[in-house]
Amino acid sequence: MNDPATADLWPGEGTEAPRRLLLAAVDSFARRGYHATTTRDIATAAGMSPAALYIHYPSKAALLAEISRTGHQATFDLVERAEAASTDPVRQMRRLVEDFTVWHARGHTVGRIVNNELHALPEDTFAAVAELRIRIEETVRRIIEHGVAAGLFEVSDPRTAARAVTSLGVDVSRWYTERSSEPPEELGRRYAELVLRMLGATA
Amino acid sequence: MNDPATADLWPGEGTEAPRRLLLAAVDSFARRGYHATTTRDIATAAGMSPAALYIHYPSKAALLAEISRTGHQATFDLVERAEAASTDPVRQMRRLVEDFTVWHARGHTVGRIVNNELHALPEDTFAAVAELRIRIEETVRRIIEHGVAAGLFEVSDPRTAARAVTSLGVDVSRWYTERSSEPPEELGRRYAELVLRMLGATA
Repeated sequence: MNDPATADLWPGEGTEAPRRLLLAAVDSFARRGYHATTTRDIATAAGMSPAALYIHYPSKAALLAEISRTGHQATFDLVERAEAASTDPVRQMRRLVEDFTVWHARGHTVGRIVNNELHALPEDTFAAVAELRIRIEETVRRIIEHGVAAGLFEVSDPRTAARAVTSLGVDVSRWYTERSSEPPEELGRRYAELVLRMLGATA
Repeated sequence: MNDPATADLWPGEGTEAPRRLLLAAVDSFARRGYHATTTRDIATAAGMSPAALYIHYPSKAALLAEISRTGHQATFDLVERAEAASTDPVRQMRRLVEDFTVWHARGHTVGRIVNNELHALPEDTFAAVAELRIRIEETVRRIIEHGVAAGLFEVSDPRTAARAVTSLGVDVSRWYTERSSEPPEELGRRYAELVLRMLGATA
């Protein structure tokens, strides 16, 4: 409940009931796992009754859907912003890897839930989220292809390289903890350097 | 139950009850998630009674512990073999990334269970598994450091680079499916190329 990165996903008044329920759901899913969490656990953590929860969300799956949709939208938005911030593929890629890594380090609690519970999503949310994941990877690949075309990157298989870049960032959520030695920003800078080398970027 | 990579983890007679239970547990955890799986589900999938299951494993957690221990031991073994196979850090790293990637692609079902359910492990298994994970990463780092010392790699921060190499391989279990376009061996070769470039390997 005290995780600022989680709270950032739902800006607005801290006392709004839907937001309190989302934060309580993230906290409960992270502690117990999605399957072992009951709507009563979530309502209790939010200081509400189960009946009050149902006014806002019809089910535990609806809360997971909203968490997953919001988390994926936030990462897609930062990937889009990184591409829009420059016309230079090296700068685009550096910013993308830095921001993507920082997001997954700072937001590792939400990231873990979102990545581990894809199979538990309602079908329409799964489709929306899968679409966002595809668009994230397409953006990464587009930057790589522009870099190759401009002679700035040297990559024989942009699809696999884009997969590797995305995978490296997503997996930060799995292993990063508050006890990790690098602050998110420092990890982001180091990962951006490693990725640019992986892409054969001319320094 | 028909996954040959899973079956490889427990070689021996296909009709042995403990092995049948382990394969049934992997199948059930993959289908339903660990928390939603009951010992009855596992016994049924193995064609046995719950009472017969308890002769071999006292609990669902004991099955998870054995799956996790075996999976981590198998990956640690291949990492050790890659280091022992040569004295050339470039060859060691290429073999390590190839084999580690192939394992996580082919064994993605076990890999996903093992990586997602660490928190559900009994304490002593968690400690043993954490130790194996540390030793895997130390081996990767040692190869990098030898490569740097020999002037074959150029890496400013071997610890972060080792983390990235390991992370890239582990995350294959999350995204790889039978529908993925590259066969595991081809993905392994491409990942080894990307990693060697990331480490600044002189071609």
